[in-house]
Amino acid sequence: MDLILRDLRTGDRSALERILLASAAFSAEEVAVALELIDLGEEPVADGYRFVVAERGGAVAGYACYGLVPLSDGCYDLYWIAVDPGLHGRGIGRRLMAAVEERLVRQGARWLLIETAGKPEYEATRAFYARVRYQEVARIPDFYRLGDDKIVYGKRLDRRP
Amino acid sequence: MDLILRDLRTGDRSALERILLASAAFSAEEVAVALELIDLGEEPVADGYRFVVAERGGAVAGYACYGLVPLSDGCYDLYWIAVDPGLHGRGIGRRLMAAVEERLVRQGARWLLIETAGKPEYEATRAFYARVRYQEVARIPDFYRLGDDKIVYGKRLDRRP
Repeated sequence: MDLILRDLRTGDRSALERILLASAAFSAEEVAVALELIDLGEEPVADGYRFVVAERGGAVAGYACYGLVPLSDGCYDLYWIAVDPGLHGRGIGRRLMAAVEERLVRQGARWLLIETAGKPEYEATRAFYARVRYQEVARIPDFYRLGDDKIVYGKRLDRRP
Repeated sequence: MDLILRDLRTGDRSALERILLASAAFSAEEVAVALELIDLGEEPVADGYRFVVAERGGAVAGYACYGLVPLSDGCYDLYWIAVDPGLHGRGIGRRLMAAVEERLVRQGARWLLIETAGKPEYEATRAFYARVRYQEVARIPDFYRLGDDKIVYGKRLDRRP
């Protein structure tokens, strides 16, 4: 089934909320933050949060949210990426990442960074970032809590073959 | 002359603005961000921005601003530290850092982190962090712009001799 990668639309919120809640990776607090960004993303402003939404057979299948790091001139953070748990293993996450990277390369971005946690629940998430060729660029031990490191993955977008 | 280390007061804003503008280290954009945090700090909320103000002979001599990292249970960021340029070299910055650390140790904090930039204008700032025993815990090359790295300095507060 074809995958469409498109901008965020006002009607996407409830489908994205369902996907975030269905995802084992996110706490209630994290879902609340993700939804706040979606609400901000529906009123686009310069240098605000940006979105790519994956749609499959007319239904929202996942999304990615990213934005420019304040005070930087070409460094972006991936704030959120989520795919409907019923559609994992079909390469939708990989397509979302590629769509974000393509948009950023076109506008001359230098870095796409992803902050994540070292806790066991994020094992699959970290394996995903490694598969799509992100490297660990920083790690701060016991950052979130004892035993839960902060890890920053990154990919240079201005030095691709 | 004695130094008093105290909480932020409503009347401090204009003195702090003068100190920030007089400091060669900060751009106009950075001063604006610092003042926004001061305005927020005057209306204290749980887990908001916190301040230590240094007062000398009845006049504000400098300040530090810090806060809990969202989603962490004991990791703090030092957002800002500034001392009146006419009063540099008297250990006021060191006293401000020590006051912040003491407050955090008392409440069981684990980390105090400081994000800064690798640009030459910040050389003196980085030397100051090294003098007060902060170590580089992460560095992302070309983060702010080409040639201007992001550097994170840190001190563990739960493992002191």
